[in-house]
Amino acid sequence: MTIPKKVRLVEVGPRDGLQNEKQPISVADKVRLVDDLTAAGLGYVEVGSFVSPKWVPQMAGSAEVFAQIQRKAGVTYAGLAPNLKGFEAAVEAGVKEVAVFAAASESFSQKNINCSIAESLERFVPVMEAAKAHGISVRGYVSCVLGCPYEGEVPAEQVASVAAELYAMGCYEVSLGDTIGTGTAGATRHLINVVGTRVPRDRLAGHFHDTYGQAVANVYASLLEGVAVFDSSVAGLGGCPYAKGATGNVATEDVLYLLNGLGIQTGIDIDQLAAAGQRICAVLGKENGSRVARAILASRG
Amino acid sequence: MTIPKKVRLVEVGPRDGLQNEKQPISVADKVRLVDDLTAAGLGYVEVGSFVSPKWVPQMAGSAEVFAQIQRKAGVTYAGLAPNLKGFEAAVEAGVKEVAVFAAASESFSQKNINCSIAESLERFVPVMEAAKAHGISVRGYVSCVLGCPYEGEVPAEQVASVAAELYAMGCYEVSLGDTIGTGTAGATRHLINVVGTRVPRDRLAGHFHDTYGQAVANVYASLLEGVAVFDSSVAGLGGCPYAKGATGNVATEDVLYLLNGLGIQTGIDIDQLAAAGQRICAVLGKENGSRVARAILASRG
Repeated sequence: MTIPKKVRLVEVGPRDGLQNEKQPISVADKVRLVDDLTAAGLGYVEVGSFVSPKWVPQMAGSAEVFAQIQRKAGVTYAGLAPNLKGFEAAVEAGVKEVAVFAAASESFSQKNINCSIAESLERFVPVMEAAKAHGISVRGYVSCVLGCPYEGEVPAEQVASVAAELYAMGCYEVSLGDTIGTGTAGATRHLINVVGTRVPRDRLAGHFHDTYGQAVANVYASLLEGVAVFDSSVAGLGGCPYAKGATGNVATEDVLYLLNGLGIQTGIDIDQLAAAGQRICAVLGKENGSRVARAILASRG
Repeated sequence: MTIPKKVRLVEVGPRDGLQNEKQPISVADKVRLVDDLTAAGLGYVEVGSFVSPKWVPQMAGSAEVFAQIQRKAGVTYAGLAPNLKGFEAAVEAGVKEVAVFAAASESFSQKNINCSIAESLERFVPVMEAAKAHGISVRGYVSCVLGCPYEGEVPAEQVASVAAELYAMGCYEVSLGDTIGTGTAGATRHLINVVGTRVPRDRLAGHFHDTYGQAVANVYASLLEGVAVFDSSVAGLGGCPYAKGATGNVATEDVLYLLNGLGIQTGIDIDQLAAAGQRICAVLGKENGSRVARAILASRG
């Protein structure tokens, strides 16, 4: 298997990232972040989430963000829609692509979204139907694919079942999330081999957390298995909700540095990307979580 | 090529790490660090450097450190000996293994050790002879193997020449150092393939800096090419002298986490190792540079 010549990066900073930052930020700052990211060349940005602001206050104003961003041709602006109510709000906001999420671990599903894996999948049926009716694409997330904070190891076959159900339901792509970052390169390759028997590899994405410093290696391991789509978060926005103070989402800059080194095309400008990350970190008053961004900034003195 | 079943980690924190920390620390703290590391199971520790304290004040007292550590059977305690004078001081301190270093880039050699690559190699000739006479093993370092802060790209063939000269001279192992951390996985594999034509792969070690977040991926890439020895620094001690505030040596904990995940044997206890790193970070008053250590600490609340 040769590694892909082209990779699509799915930028999850404005949603998955900001959702896990303590401090909610303004609609204007979110809009600026999304526009900065697409100006840097990102072709896919998860902009916000259509959930109750009671549960996720950081995602309040997602409709306003969608209304105010400068839509660039060829860019996908997606929103998370956990249920039909969220989906309807997304449609009203003019969203053309939504994401749904399920867990590969029962305990995580119960604690995170308060229902079993099977129940969560049932909940997506009307969302999928409505999406089809509206001509809206749906992307699926599976969390805890390489470990669960409550159960520990998660069998690859269990991940494959959930991924296959999402794919069969109509998700055009399934993103495999190492939610707690405990996956390593060998386990990643094994996972892709197992899930790849149920969902075509060109319909899989890797979503790695860098909590144990393994995410870039896991992206490389996934490339070796033919995966060509990766989720990442500018400046490593988000942190790790399961270990406060630890690293969460892999930084987009760090993944891009790997891809550039491998000669893989993405169309993204790394300096502009790092500047976008640094700006949002200044707004949040936090240190930049990207090693590449820190090195670029440090080398400029 | 299957990946190695067993890996030797060369702990460079007490030397390469502390040498690049601003704040010099006491002999007692250095001794404690070395003893903590060997108690955690590390089988090779670079303890100090026999250079003029005028040039490297952080390495003052290396002879005292060697005199006070608790020597554990089967552990190699090494010292850096840049020239014959340093070598003699190392012998006097009872050192049984020394390291010498050369650069793969002319500009780096000139700026770092004030002589050409050829001159630096000539300087090692009497060291190698004296080492042979004393029955002391010599390990060679080559720096700037995947990029130079002054020249940019460094041809793999140039690295191979320097590595081959060190090997021919009597270095039993040659450590390939990505001094500025700009290497990525593909370049790492190419480098090992090229150097591997001149020096047997089981005589090569990888020494990666995590400045651009690539080090763990580069270790994995090296494993795929059959390299089974890696240098690393507990808690990522050292930082990056070429970009202040950026990351330097890859953290031993982060490499060990990868190796553990791959089922590769090292004999090292990751919790004890993380505790050793956290202790020295407290002495230095700095944040722990290991993502694994931060995650372990965070998960304990």
